[in-house]
Amino acid sequence: MFGIGVGILVFGYWRLFRWNRERRRLQIEELEARIALLPLLQAEQDRRTLRMLRENLEEEAVIMKDVPGWKVGEKAFHTDRWVPPVTEELFNLRPREEMLQKKFGFQCKEEAVAMETELLRDYRFGRQQLTEILGHACATAIAKAFPLSSLEKRQPTVLVICGPDQNGCVGLACARHLHVFEYIPTVFSPKRSPDSLHQDLTVQCERMDLPFLSYLPTEVQLINDAYNVVVDAVLGPETELKAIDEPLTGILQTLRGLKVPIASLDIPSGWDADESSSEGISPAVLVSLMTPKRCALSFPGSHFLAGRFLPYDIQKKYELNLPKFSGTDSVVEL
Amino acid sequence: MFGIGVGILVFGYWRLFRWNRERRRLQIEELEARIALLPLLQAEQDRRTLRMLRENLEEEAVIMKDVPGWKVGEKAFHTDRWVPPVTEELFNLRPREEMLQKKFGFQCKEEAVAMETELLRDYRFGRQQLTEILGHACATAIAKAFPLSSLEKRQPTVLVICGPDQNGCVGLACARHLHVFEYIPTVFSPKRSPDSLHQDLTVQCERMDLPFLSYLPTEVQLINDAYNVVVDAVLGPETELKAIDEPLTGILQTLRGLKVPIASLDIPSGWDADESSSEGISPAVLVSLMTPKRCALSFPGSHFLAGRFLPYDIQKKYELNLPKFSGTDSVVEL
Repeated sequence: MFGIGVGILVFGYWRLFRWNRERRRLQIEELEARIALLPLLQAEQDRRTLRMLRENLEEEAVIMKDVPGWKVGEKAFHTDRWVPPVTEELFNLRPREEMLQKKFGFQCKEEAVAMETELLRDYRFGRQQLTEILGHACATAIAKAFPLSSLEKRQPTVLVICGPDQNGCVGLACARHLHVFEYIPTVFSPKRSPDSLHQDLTVQCERMDLPFLSYLPTEVQLINDAYNVVVDAVLGPETELKAIDEPLTGILQTLRGLKVPIASLDIPSGWDADESSSEGISPAVLVSLMTPKRCALSFPGSHFLAGRFLPYDIQKKYELNLPKFSGTDSVVEL
Repeated sequence: MFGIGVGILVFGYWRLFRWNRERRRLQIEELEARIALLPLLQAEQDRRTLRMLRENLEEEAVIMKDVPGWKVGEKAFHTDRWVPPVTEELFNLRPREEMLQKKFGFQCKEEAVAMETELLRDYRFGRQQLTEILGHACATAIAKAFPLSSLEKRQPTVLVICGPDQNGCVGLACARHLHVFEYIPTVFSPKRSPDSLHQDLTVQCERMDLPFLSYLPTEVQLINDAYNVVVDAVLGPETELKAIDEPLTGILQTLRGLKVPIASLDIPSGWDADESSSEGISPAVLVSLMTPKRCALSFPGSHFLAGRFLPYDIQKKYELNLPKFSGTDSVVEL
């Protein structure tokens, strides 16, 4: 009996030691693979950096050719030590868009659509899931941009205008979460959508006693008086701008005349996803969903990124360079 | 032309003023209704309080009957002013469970199931949606209970054990969010589930390169050595404890022997949802989903409530008395 006990003990320890040894071996293997690969990657990176530095010097020579006594590439510091240049130094002679592109990886419309398809098909994300994550993140972003204590009106009223498509679904989820965050959201959803997700989200809002407007007042002053913020979830990047008609055109017209701040989800409605526009509405806050879109490259207001769940492989594939989210936050300000 | 312009302007202002007047009228009406109702509600509340105070006095008389010179109901303060008693004062002579029940509204198994059915059927919430909200909230709670900086092991490893049912789905979503929060979760899901949601969530985790264990080591020391925390998402409140068999019984056995802290989702696996148990596993952290369950009434560890989305009507109907969530948090510690 005692012998069997000791035997089991010895066997257990033997397995434990073996497993520890095996683990150490695997760790070392991984470390070696990394050591072997790193120089190659670093060299490529360095070549790219050096080429950019030379281009910068050439550009500098062109710009400063009229200044007598200017030495191109002269260092401002008295040192010969190599200092890796920061992103701003590399990009300061290039267009601002390129730097932002490098920093965050802005997406064009086709990429955004392809990425979403891939998430739904290959990663088996559900539309409900994505909508819920994004709606929650949007509500958090709006609560960050317009904290309850900062609102001027007596009641924390918010008007959420939801389109009939994907963007409208996110808007409905966002309205529900705003209600939970103790705002008083009112929903305006001009078109009943055939989409069952849209219908379900509408029912959720209705059953939670969120008021729905039956029409949007054309008198802009009424909206200015009644609401602190208007959330614009009318059109998303996938919408064909030429195909839209009443009542959406009327709504865009009204939005353009508003005095209260507008918070747009994904892209400002009516803008093309690939170009920034000066004619359309001019929101105070933009909440990009998953990735920033091209049209937001030179966006002047405060710009949030919502949705922190993109798999690493997707980020690599679409060359995204998303900013770091802190802690357990689901939004980040760019 | 000018006349028409002035006409439209006057008409607009007239509508604006009328609407403002109408709004003011509605506000006053609401206020009056509230003023009319309040005394009734307050009176009922007061009756209940006074009755409890009298019962307390009777109890006090019984307890202190052997102490000579004790005056029942003598005040400790020299004042005749009426001070509304705090919850603790009202309940201190009653069982602790009753106080907690009053404070948070703990649910029994049947209520929890009925509430979920109602959410899915009447409020048209989707299972994907609920799972995603809860998974995210659980990951946040775990990140609160075990911050990255507090972990002792060199790497922030977490083992997430997922059962085949609803609770396992939440576990999988939680693992995915933990991965996003920069923990290193490993998943162990002993049974392939026929549920398509469970399969989708598994694919998401696999495609995001979360490692899956093919079996759980019976040698407890291996788990103690390799992981900082074990997340137990094996069984939920709806499981019939008599019906479970291998491999789940073996897993529960292993969990019981662990030295690393366990974080249980909804209820500690193997406990009955309605009674606290001393034989089963003893988790360090319990994350209740949507509402606290009966078995958590006398839970000694830290207890979080995850999921902040229950409609007001549901909270009233099931007599929940949920604690206040601060800001945009989705979890709260009880």
